[in-house]
Amino acid sequence: MNTYGKMFRVTTWGESHGLAIGAIVDGCPSGLIITPEYVQKELDMRRPGQSEVTTSRTEKDTVEILSGVFEGKTLGTPISMLVRNEDTDSSFYEQIRYVPRPGHADYTYFVKYGHRDHRGGGRSSARETVGRVAAGAIAKRLLEYFGIWVLGHVVEIHGIKSNFVFETPEDLRAAEMSIVRCCDPDASAQMEECIKRAKMIGESVGGIAEVVAFNVPAGVGEPVFDKLDAELAKALMSIGAVKGVEIGVGFKSVTLTGSQMNDEFAVNAGIIETASNRTGGILGGISTGKPIVCRVAVKPTSSIAKPQKSVHLKTKEEVELTIAGRHDPCILPRVVPVAESMVAIVLADFMIRGGFIDPVKLE
Amino acid sequence: MNTYGKMFRVTTWGESHGLAIGAIVDGCPSGLIITPEYVQKELDMRRPGQSEVTTSRTEKDTVEILSGVFEGKTLGTPISMLVRNEDTDSSFYEQIRYVPRPGHADYTYFVKYGHRDHRGGGRSSARETVGRVAAGAIAKRLLEYFGIWVLGHVVEIHGIKSNFVFETPEDLRAAEMSIVRCCDPDASAQMEECIKRAKMIGESVGGIAEVVAFNVPAGVGEPVFDKLDAELAKALMSIGAVKGVEIGVGFKSVTLTGSQMNDEFAVNAGIIETASNRTGGILGGISTGKPIVCRVAVKPTSSIAKPQKSVHLKTKEEVELTIAGRHDPCILPRVVPVAESMVAIVLADFMIRGGFIDPVKLE
Amino acid sequence: MNTYGKMFRVTTWGESHGLAIGAIVDGCPSGLIITPEYVQKELDMRRPGQSEVTTSRTEKDTVEILSGVFEGKTLGTPISMLVRNEDTDSSFYEQIRYVPRPGHADYTYFVKYGHRDHRGGGRSSARETVGRVAAGAIAKRLLEYFGIWVLGHVVEIHGIKSNFVFETPEDLRAAEMSIVRCCDPDASAQMEECIKRAKMIGESVGGIAEVVAFNVPAGVGEPVFDKLDAELAKALMSIGAVKGVEIGVGFKSVTLTGSQMNDEFAVNAGIIETASNRTGGILGGISTGKPIVCRVAVKPTSSIAKPQKSVHLKTKEEVELTIAGRHDPCILPRVVPVAESMVAIVLADFMIRGGFIDPVKLE
Amino acid sequence: MNTYGKMFRVTTWGESHGLAIGAIVDGCPSGLIITPEYVQKELDMRRPGQSEVTTSRTEKDTVEILSGVFEGKTLGTPISMLVRNEDTDSSFYEQIRYVPRPGHADYTYFVKYGHRDHRGGGRSSARETVGRVAAGAIAKRLLEYFGIWVLGHVVEIHGIKSNFVFETPEDLRAAEMSIVRCCDPDASAQMEECIKRAKMIGESVGGIAEVVAFNVPAGVGEPVFDKLDAELAKALMSIGAVKGVEIGVGFKSVTLTGSQMNDEFAVNAGIIETASNRTGGILGGISTGKPIVCRVAVKPTSSIAKPQKSVHLKTKEEVELTIAGRHDPCILPRVVPVAESMVAIVLADFMIRGGFIDPVKLE
Repeated sequence: MNTYGKMFRVTTWGESHGLAIGAIVDGCPSGLIITPEYVQKELDMRRPGQSEVTTSRTEKDTVEILSGVFEGKTLGTPISMLVRNEDTDSSFYEQIRYVPRPGHADYTYFVKYGHRDHRGGGRSSARETVGRVAAGAIAKRLLEYFGIWVLGHVVEIHGIKSNFVFETPEDLRAAEMSIVRCCDPDASAQMEECIKRAKMIGESVGGIAEVVAFNVPAGVGEPVFDKLDAELAKALMSIGAVKGVEIGVGFKSVTLTGSQMNDEFAVNAGIIETASNRTGGILGGISTGKPIVCRVAVKPTSSIAKPQKSVHLKTKEEVELTIAGRHDPCILPRVVPVAESMVAIVLADFMIRGGFIDPVKLE
Repeated sequence: MNTYGKMFRVTTWGESHGLAIGAIVDGCPSGLIITPEYVQKELDMRRPGQSEVTTSRTEKDTVEILSGVFEGKTLGTPISMLVRNEDTDSSFYEQIRYVPRPGHADYTYFVKYGHRDHRGGGRSSARETVGRVAAGAIAKRLLEYFGIWVLGHVVEIHGIKSNFVFETPEDLRAAEMSIVRCCDPDASAQMEECIKRAKMIGESVGGIAEVVAFNVPAGVGEPVFDKLDAELAKALMSIGAVKGVEIGVGFKSVTLTGSQMNDEFAVNAGIIETASNRTGGILGGISTGKPIVCRVAVKPTSSIAKPQKSVHLKTKEEVELTIAGRHDPCILPRVVPVAESMVAIVLADFMIRGGFIDPVKLE
Repeated sequence: MNTYGKMFRVTTWGESHGLAIGAIVDGCPSGLIITPEYVQKELDMRRPGQSEVTTSRTEKDTVEILSGVFEGKTLGTPISMLVRNEDTDSSFYEQIRYVPRPGHADYTYFVKYGHRDHRGGGRSSARETVGRVAAGAIAKRLLEYFGIWVLGHVVEIHGIKSNFVFETPEDLRAAEMSIVRCCDPDASAQMEECIKRAKMIGESVGGIAEVVAFNVPAGVGEPVFDKLDAELAKALMSIGAVKGVEIGVGFKSVTLTGSQMNDEFAVNAGIIETASNRTGGILGGISTGKPIVCRVAVKPTSSIAKPQKSVHLKTKEEVELTIAGRHDPCILPRVVPVAESMVAIVLADFMIRGGFIDPVKLE
Repeated sequence: MNTYGKMFRVTTWGESHGLAIGAIVDGCPSGLIITPEYVQKELDMRRPGQSEVTTSRTEKDTVEILSGVFEGKTLGTPISMLVRNEDTDSSFYEQIRYVPRPGHADYTYFVKYGHRDHRGGGRSSARETVGRVAAGAIAKRLLEYFGIWVLGHVVEIHGIKSNFVFETPEDLRAAEMSIVRCCDPDASAQMEECIKRAKMIGESVGGIAEVVAFNVPAGVGEPVFDKLDAELAKALMSIGAVKGVEIGVGFKSVTLTGSQMNDEFAVNAGIIETASNRTGGILGGISTGKPIVCRVAVKPTSSIAKPQKSVHLKTKEEVELTIAGRHDPCILPRVVPVAESMVAIVLADFMIRGGFIDPVKLE
């Protein structure tokens, strides 16, 4: 299924080296101000070729809004967005038509679908996230209309940890200043160094990105299966290369006792709230009113320059594969806008489902 | 939403101290042999009061199958299963009618729904998992018909780690012999000790459970949003107390390089497969044919005997709360059958969606 | 699929001669006053054995509400309702285990599912509508909270037409006084006569029921596929024996010209509205604010006393079948509450989807 | 919601006078041969400007397939199809920016969404069916692969009835030879005359179209809510201007007795089947194996040249409106391919859901 969400619904389509790639957003209320420039700005954040630590594939990724917006405002009808693929030299990929790259979805797509577009991974390419970010731009815009901010940053790369502590949305905007999207300048420098070293030796590295949603009201989420944390887990795990998701203190909770883990309740300025936020802003699948905090573990990029063993899908001969193409030695910086987009899409959907946002029109 | 799945659909209903609790399974093919005794056996695995390390609430939890099964076999129509609540003394809970327990969903349900059943957590009680396990029993039965086994065990409690290494489904059945569901006898003994100690001092502890699905064919899962790992993440994160989910090496991938992480391809007995299984049996959201491996981080039980601070929801007075009721000092042993159930439900759904199981009838 | 609706979701389950039959309503906001007596009253309207023109199967059909209601009000959690089957002598049905009754779903269930419950039609029995009416009772209650009334009446039986013209909801309540649910006393008497005559000669007759929803605000419905009329058509056509659905003037529109069909706009007491309502309260799939008017064509009851030809499913021998069991010679009177229920369920769902009813809680 | 279907999913997008209009098909198995030429041929059937009895708006409606097809075959990934809008002179429509046209959705869109694209009806324009026909072309192709043919024809226009009796798919292809898509040459000539007369006097007329699906195997359809006839009713009623839907003998069943209506069972060449097909190929919501027969009542075109009364949405002044633009005096001929498309989409979806078509790949 290439559609996500129940009331705010996102459908993405397109293969890496096909004619175009795009997204439809269905269920955005009417009256929201949207311009191509606004969506373009978000797309530029995930675009390749931004720095030395990302792939050198250079595409302008110019977005066209084909429907759903009239005289500058959404209509409540489907918003169709399109990006033409430009830098699609596929000659390199002929060698992998029948040789699956380790760590990629080449083999599983071959087994599942039989016929597949092998060029650049086809549908399983990270390029699919262009559609997610375009749709995420609409979701973010809608949330911002209600004062909600979704911001991500990198907190760990290959063992190098950020010591950054945030309080407000403004704090996290520091990530935009770092080419690895890490708010801690020291860690940022080390991470950059680490990525360059990995690239030099034909390797790749992974890391952890954190996304925080500020000002989400208490009461968002739908037990018992569509819990807010459950949907966030799905949305984030659906991003390629993500191998783990955690909420609040996450896996660290395993080493705490009940009294160390539980957030006690207190009254603050007349409002009941949890005094701490180890739970990451969610209890019983419903938001508490505190910031939503989630993290994703991202594996090292599968494409590496080092030779690897594979098998020819037709002849079943074992072969050695060297991936010469352009690739990111570390995908973390470019995962950040995608993870933000997925969190924003989940929240937009749940805000509508919970009656916090009118499903049809803004006032 | 209290329904999970697209083709194999599970709906659970019921409050902890209401008249009954139950589940509907819609979309199970006809012709599957199901008896109440079979479902009962699975329910007995999650039942409280089984040992010193679980709650002393004692309920027989006798299941009644009200529809969907005729002359011992499923009809392809909805299977309705019902368990009456018996041990439902609610007198204790009057004190928490307006005082939310830290770590529980009392506060968020109050904010979201206004009117709530405060007795034993109502709908947010772990008792809701009775329905999940009953439905999971049907899912497991269906998978076993196709040779697929879903088995869980506890791999860590409060820092104590299992050193157990498994190869076959049979290996993991050892978990049933341990009251903490840990296959490593030494770790099991230490875990038991740790839980008893926690109980003695009015505390609770958390841990990690792992679920493995054997013999899942390659090709199961639906990119780009309904990836197999994404749905597993949602299904597992929807279990109360779960704060993190990981697939394969999970968060550990963050410290590996690309060549250390990637599973190379090899030919084994004429079959192409990954030589290792760090990816946990899933690439690009589609199963590889290797065992599916996932883990959940479970926080320490929220109910503890130690006094905790809370706030009266009406008067906004700060109060000290001591939870005297029966509770599990560690929920891990009882999470295992629930996590197995959710994995089985996800797989049953995807096996049907992928054309591996006929959606209507078994041969 | 045994679930209907997107936000207000109804699941029915149960076979005619199984242990019980029931429904789950998921997505009803919290705070709605619901009692078993209220639901019972609605069920009594569809109960068999009410008069000489309905089947003599006598069941009390006592409903039990097992969850979702606490201290007299809905919780926002699933409402599980159960009715035990009592008058389930199945001995008659042994003769049709392998002999499909003409007009019934015996044959198609056999082909589709292989294994089936042949007793009384099993899942395909009209008895399934017990669950629909129980769920419809909740939907009606919710709509009435917002001033919306859904009322049905019989407008034609076997060519005998009602000349009744209604203006207000009160007018249509006259249907309750007629045992054939027809508001026109003359037609009602003729219809009753016609049904008795059909019964006497071992035959059955069909007719048309109309359902009207008053006070539905303008703006309800979701183009382009989930149009209000489209969903009504689905919901009504899903009732057994319904062979046609029409909205407003329906099939009669075929003989009108554009100027005869179009409802012109006018201002009435400061409000813009259509001056007439030939369109049945819906334009472009969205309600206009005028009464929603829909009609269903119901075929003659399939069970008739006259001998009919059929074929043994195993031996393929042609056999003559005489259905001796109890049955309604005309199902129309009992279709009315079912059709009302389906219209109410559709409207409840769309009112929530359109932001007219808060999806989570009533004020 | 702008998406239809559960496994074979169609999303349409686009406004009448926006940049483009299109459709996504998600869930089509891989391996199906699809070319732009094939889809174009289907689109040409619904194109305006084909004859004297349709609108003179002239657009080439050239389709571009942007994704989901590689080397001539489907990939199992979303198929994105795009048609640029060309003949979009909007100057005429400025006069109706605030004056709703009787019979159109102008008023209801204004009430529902507030902000709307008034040009040519925007999203509510019949132009939206371009997307349906493009998607329907994929559905038809998939069905034809399995020997299923979906064919429509006009059976009545403004009281003039076709006397055509069909037996095979070939018989119905005669409709393509008639500019009003009626297989009965005499009726066809009268219908054409009738439409021209209506046009001359500034009026419009309606009619009935019938769609027949041949070779659908027995067993297709999902009780109790997603019955095959229920979904067909929804799909067909979702087409603009449709006011009624019937299956088999439909509304005529109201005048029959049970023995006249029921189709008896017989053995034909060793196969059990119904001897007649009054039920239209569906019993209990499941196909019988006989042709599926459904009909739609289409109201007279809402746009007429005669002056009509309306109200200015802002000033609430009553105004007289004359619609000078191009329009079809009778939409029936162009409804046929749209109705065929909807039936094909429903069948493709149910064939996959019922296990008749592999959901992932063709052999």
